Amino acid sequence: MRVINFNPGPAGLPLPALERARDELLDFQGSGMSVMEHSHRGKEYEAVHDEAISLLTELLGIPATHQVLFLTGGASQQFAQVPMNFLTPDTGADYLMTGVWSEKAFEEAKYYGKPRVAATTVQPDKHYTRVPRQDELKLDAKAAYVHLTSNNTIYGTQWHTFPDVGNVPLVADMSSDFLWKRIDVSRFGLIYAGAQKNLGPSGVTLVVADKAFIARGRKDIPKFFRYTTHAENNSLYNTPPTFAIYLVRNVLAWMKGLGGLEQMERQNREKAALLYGAIDRNSGFYRAPVERESRSVMNVVFHLPSEELNAAFVAEAKKAGMVGLKGHRTAGGIRVSTYNAVTVENVRTLATFMDHFVKTRG
Amino acid sequence: MRVINFNPGPAGLPLPALERARDELLDFQGSGMSVMEHSHRGKEYEAVHDEAISLLTELLGIPATHQVLFLTGGASQQFAQVPMNFLTPDTGADYLMTGVWSEKAFEEAKYYGKPRVAATTVQPDKHYTRVPRQDELKLDAKAAYVHLTSNNTIYGTQWHTFPDVGNVPLVADMSSDFLWKRIDVSRFGLIYAGAQKNLGPSGVTLVVADKAFIARGRKDIPKFFRYTTHAENNSLYNTPPTFAIYLVRNVLAWMKGLGGLEQMERQNREKAALLYGAIDRNSGFYRAPVERESRSVMNVVFHLPSEELNAAFVAEAKKAGMVGLKGHRTAGGIRVSTYNAVTVENVRTLATFMDHFVKTRG
Ligand SMILES: Cc1ncc(COP(=O)(O)O)c(C=O)c1O
Ligand SMILES: Cc1ncc(COP(=O)(O)O)c(C=O)c1O
Ligand SMILES: [Mg+2]
Ligand SMILES: [Mg+2]
Ligand SMILES: [Mg+2]
Ligand SMILES: [Mg+2]
Repeated sequence: MRVINFNPGPAGLPLPALERARDELLDFQGSGMSVMEHSHRGKEYEAVHDEAISLLTELLGIPATHQVLFLTGGASQQFAQVPMNFLTPDTGADYLMTGVWSEKAFEEAKYYGKPRVAATTVQPDKHYTRVPRQDELKLDAKAAYVHLTSNNTIYGTQWHTFPDVGNVPLVADMSSDFLWKRIDVSRFGLIYAGAQKNLGPSGVTLVVADKAFIARGRKDIPKFFRYTTHAENNSLYNTPPTFAIYLVRNVLAWMKGLGGLEQMERQNREKAALLYGAIDRNSGFYRAPVERESRSVMNVVFHLPSEELNAAFVAEAKKAGMVGLKGHRTAGGIRVSTYNAVTVENVRTLATFMDHFVKTRG
Repeated sequence: MRVINFNPGPAGLPLPALERARDELLDFQGSGMSVMEHSHRGKEYEAVHDEAISLLTELLGIPATHQVLFLTGGASQQFAQVPMNFLTPDTGADYLMTGVWSEKAFEEAKYYGKPRVAATTVQPDKHYTRVPRQDELKLDAKAAYVHLTSNNTIYGTQWHTFPDVGNVPLVADMSSDFLWKRIDVSRFGLIYAGAQKNLGPSGVTLVVADKAFIARGRKDIPKFFRYTTHAENNSLYNTPPTFAIYLVRNVLAWMKGLGGLEQMERQNREKAALLYGAIDRNSGFYRAPVERESRSVMNVVFHLPSEELNAAFVAEAKKAGMVGLKGHRTAGGIRVSTYNAVTVENVRTLATFMDHFVKTRG
């Protein structure tokens, strides 16, 4: 019996994508071996690799100016790889600070250049409850790039419109909201996202890079760390994480079969409406710290009146077959992560449980 | 029907390790989700992670001075990460050049310090047919480390005794012969190996590091790239490639069940003896370019009298259910990769085929 999985990442995957993997785990398409036993230079694996890229290109509407890369090391490696490629000791980059992940990205940039805080919504208690407004950004037109975290997995805030940053390339950590809906990719210099929330297992990092932007990257850094190396070799410069990419392919094929990103967006908005609806109609019991315009569609954060009730909520939900609801240690309370594999039905079950919990324990 | 898989990497995996993965792919130990859907901070995954480390520690006899790390990016990332941690623009490192992989490692080191060629067996035709002898090494006692490639996957050469490098830390790329037999880990400052040959799928890099050595690493590099960051966090600083590590755990458990590294060594020596035996008794037909003392136990390279015969050999072997035999484009000919998952029986089948091929086509 599968449980309802609200894990923040690694997260639940769509059952059809997993079943497909299971059914051919020992013998991939009659080849007599698992896909993970195939050479990354053989035609069987390369077809999977290329299909993953073309599905992503199609679903997201990636223009010819941009290229998909499969890297590793998670978003945390990108925190360092981005400034390694684009900063020098004398150049700056503008960071928009909206939580723990932006802070980590900012810290890594200091080893290569002069990152600046161009906006922050940090509060005196060090927490964040919203993203900055356009009029709060103090941008430097000479910055090498502007960096933002599109969705703040821990605090449950999200950029619903991306800021205007002029002609400076926009770099976005989309780890926790990549592929929940269509976006205008042409506005970004580089997008990165660990696969383990919306589109696969951990172990592969998706990058969508503006080819002209990465071509301007430093040449005096190791070949392995240059984006151009992976771009020129179609992410086959060295051995990629083939099985993780295969699973991403399975998830992308499932998304396409369901109706693509239009359908994902519809479902995700419906799921978020169900949860924020349950919070708001029980607002004397559930407290949502995030300001309304910054509420995340992916990670819904709320608090019950006491630590005991937070714990009881998690424990009773678990008995009802729902797991992964404990908030991050930094933010506390409850966090419901509703990535693409979580169904509207799953969320309806939780929303009903939330109403019921108020009646019995409120 | 599974084929006999002689792929050089990604390579064949032991069937029991794959079957175990298949059987619990949708529901890991009754938890209602796949192991890849579990949080990397949850007790279910952490038990797998810790078991992989303790199995490796036990099998290889890793002393308490050393620590196992799970990183990503393959050996190619280590080519850059090692010098990033241990070199400064003014310090040198000694590289022992034995093939394409040592050359790539050497090139990446130039971005951080002054790597030196302390020995090379390169020939005028740019190929390599042996590893250096101890008396050929021109070591610098002030080098930050000595780097070698323990097994040269492409040319089929292998270090059968590791050189004496005095008090300088020895760093080894063991990508293609890690865990084929016990070694004295205490002699190494750092060992690295992509999992995709002897112990798992691609997507995770095994590192065994001397704790005192990595503690002396640079502190002015990004936190993510410091070995100490991953050591201090038990390889859970950020999201590790959980499913790849789970598969490594399955392979290690299978190795232990079979009798550990003593048994692996026995089998691997028997496999190599079968293949070199077939080559040597048909030496008018099969030509082994590698000098006898440097012959690899993992990758057996030989040439038939013509390109046509090389191609016919690969094609007929494939009809007989054996794949992955084409030599690397750099070396040409035939390469038989006989990592741990390849059985003695598999190799006997190939050796018999080799004798037969000489009779019919020789
Ligand atoms: C927005 C965001 N960025 C970065 C990270 C770190 O990702 P990784 O663990 O893949 O390095 C996370 C992890 O949850 C995240 O949610
Ligand atoms: C000895 C050796 N080192 C390094 C590599 C490169 O490894 P990766 O593709 O994991 O970066 C290989 C790949 O086959 C290898 O055999
Ligand atoms: Mg955050
Ligand atoms: Mg390779
Ligand atoms: Mg080599
Ligand atoms: Mg994480």
